[in-house]
Amino acid sequence: MAETITLSKIGDCLAGLRERRPLVHNITNYVVMNWTANVLLALGASPAMVHAPEEVEEFVGISAALVVNIGTLDTSWIKSMSLAGRKAAAAGVPWALDPVGAGATALRTRTALELLAIGPNVLRGNASEIMALFGAAGHMPKGVDATASSTQALDAARGLAAANGTIVAVTGAVDYVIGAKGGVALAGGSPMSQLVTGTGCAATACVGAFLGIEADPLLATAAGLAVLKAAAALAAPRAEGPGSFQIALLDALHHLSADDVARHVTIETVMAHSA
Amino acid sequence: MAETITLSKIGDCLAGLRERRPLVHNITNYVVMNWTANVLLALGASPAMVHAPEEVEEFVGISAALVVNIGTLDTSWIKSMSLAGRKAAAAGVPWALDPVGAGATALRTRTALELLAIGPNVLRGNASEIMALFGAAGHMPKGVDATASSTQALDAARGLAAANGTIVAVTGAVDYVIGAKGGVALAGGSPMSQLVTGTGCAATACVGAFLGIEADPLLATAAGLAVLKAAAALAAPRAEGPGSFQIALLDALHHLSADDVARHVTIETVMAHSA
Amino acid sequence: MAETITLSKIGDCLAGLRERRPLVHNITNYVVMNWTANVLLALGASPAMVHAPEEVEEFVGISAALVVNIGTLDTSWIKSMSLAGRKAAAAGVPWALDPVGAGATALRTRTALELLAIGPNVLRGNASEIMALFGAAGHMPKGVDATASSTQALDAARGLAAANGTIVAVTGAVDYVIGAKGGVALAGGSPMSQLVTGTGCAATACVGAFLGIEADPLLATAAGLAVLKAAAALAAPRAEGPGSFQIALLDALHHLSADDVARHVTIETVMAHSA
Repeated sequence: MAETITLSKIGDCLAGLRERRPLVHNITNYVVMNWTANVLLALGASPAMVHAPEEVEEFVGISAALVVNIGTLDTSWIKSMSLAGRKAAAAGVPWALDPVGAGATALRTRTALELLAIGPNVLRGNASEIMALFGAAGHMPKGVDATASSTQALDAARGLAAANGTIVAVTGAVDYVIGAKGGVALAGGSPMSQLVTGTGCAATACVGAFLGIEADPLLATAAGLAVLKAAAALAAPRAEGPGSFQIALLDALHHLSADDVARHVTIETVMAHSA
Repeated sequence: MAETITLSKIGDCLAGLRERRPLVHNITNYVVMNWTANVLLALGASPAMVHAPEEVEEFVGISAALVVNIGTLDTSWIKSMSLAGRKAAAAGVPWALDPVGAGATALRTRTALELLAIGPNVLRGNASEIMALFGAAGHMPKGVDATASSTQALDAARGLAAANGTIVAVTGAVDYVIGAKGGVALAGGSPMSQLVTGTGCAATACVGAFLGIEADPLLATAAGLAVLKAAAALAAPRAEGPGSFQIALLDALHHLSADDVARHVTIETVMAHSA
Repeated sequence: MAETITLSKIGDCLAGLRERRPLVHNITNYVVMNWTANVLLALGASPAMVHAPEEVEEFVGISAALVVNIGTLDTSWIKSMSLAGRKAAAAGVPWALDPVGAGATALRTRTALELLAIGPNVLRGNASEIMALFGAAGHMPKGVDATASSTQALDAARGLAAANGTIVAVTGAVDYVIGAKGGVALAGGSPMSQLVTGTGCAATACVGAFLGIEADPLLATAAGLAVLKAAAALAAPRAEGPGSFQIALLDALHHLSADDVARHVTIETVMAHSA
């Protein structure tokens, strides 16, 4: 499966996304709502943030994809996330789960596992979160930052992908996108992304946008992560610090071409099992 | 009535706003709270975001104007919006309603109509929302974007204005501001506004700011929309994409002069009834 | 005590913060969550926003410091703030309280006083808030802006510090940091800070970050306020308005050196009692 993912296909996805402008339903955290909406608009998607239990199912029904992010969860939001995830699963609307802070508190780990059990098409986290969910790590992540490298979490990603029948993406300096039959590793981007809150959340949102227009979730996930890496690579040399990087990233996403992706991202095949 | 609205009067309103720095009470959505506060500060108003049912009425009482925006509504927020709107109506505090996503879900349409029944001085929406509220359109809006042009919604705006005795503003490439005896059309601005989340919400907030210092709601509404159009026109040539446009828009609002408004916005009279 | 606070020691704190990257647990308002997280990341700390009653105590337990900000309070958030404050007090995790809008509504004043009674290490507010809490002012603050100067609130700060055994910081053109035995006044910064929402909230967050690595709360508080003043002084000449100031402030915080602090901030001793 993995050999089918190419930067050229990702470029085609980008063109398709801009043509179709998928409506992406986000149930996400307070910290990144504005940023996420602006990232999706800059990319060419149509974002909406909708969380009331009375309307999430109806809104899933008119959306091209759903993104669930547990960054600032509480009881009433968990209910909405669960309702929306179940509706998406039932209606065939693809969805992505971002388990922010899984491993940091019992509530987060439990909620992420409950939502994972509903069956998202994609699970996207940092190394700490993915390792915490796989149970491979007894360590306590430091907040919601990745303190482990994505490569350290590769086996946990493989394990979660196999156990749950979902695509698992673990992002960092290298992004891994893993399905049942293997996947890809994406390199590129900029370390400045770590200095802006919500770049991980933005990655999941971009994955959601591509899920809205591309039927292969492995390709859609790779596309979402690749465009953000390419935009970060373009933004970094124009930035004087994390503030201007954030702004340059939005500008770069808006102008991003298939050529930019090909120039600034490298892709490699990853086996389904470690050697 | 419409002939009384001129760009010169709008310039006077801008001077008055900066002198009086009206306190604008916002009950708005999570996505745009930061953006809205920064827009109002840049314009020269004094923003506050207050939503607890226990304090909204008290806060309305010390505010110059109220803005209610249903972008990320849920049951407890709807209660606060209703309390605040009723208090504003009772206390003579002018208020504006932004029916974000009306037509997209039953909850949004119903909530917008319930709040409209309380009697806001101004209703400001995009074409899809205004048409959905008028019941003139069976179509399903695509998220919270305007997918119809503001001109298509002009008759719906006229109908809502007549039926509710309120000013109705429908914004887009051309902004229409309609009262019982007619109104005005404002042209100018920049298509880049569509690439930043919450420019519609910012428009409603600016309208709220002018309601806080100008007794004629038709003039206040035109002023709120005109300053945002002028600032967008100034910002667009300085921006390299949606990120830098957003920043340039705040810079432009802060420096905006009456001359800038006169140079970058055109105004025309609109009849109360279609020809 | 006050003579021990020097700009040189503040520079050492900045180096220590970047080395240790303290995890700062924020229970803060919707308006500034994104901004606060980005300020803390730019400074070199590790921010997290966590508010569910089910997890706040657990999260306090793994954090280096806690920041509680009542900007958009409601009943359920007040409960979380109280739980988190009590846990911090019990566990010896230092914490800072930002009483946004105290004096503006009964709910805010009461909530701020209840949280103050739990015993935060630092209380940071603007002049209106500090005077309202001290009961020295019957005036109604205009929203959450400071309408009085920080110097006018100096005696109120002294009174609150003495009565509560806490450090009280009142910020404005001059920032006062007052403990039982006196404190310091910090000058510098930029008036442009008033044009960006949440610069006060950012100050409290920066104080929280330094509380996470420095045992003397007077020094930690002075450090938090001094770095923000220095960054603002560096940002202002690079900005064309409040939008670009905000971005330049994040850039400046990231690059800030001990020399920058020494060059752009002045410090003076303040007596514990007025002359």
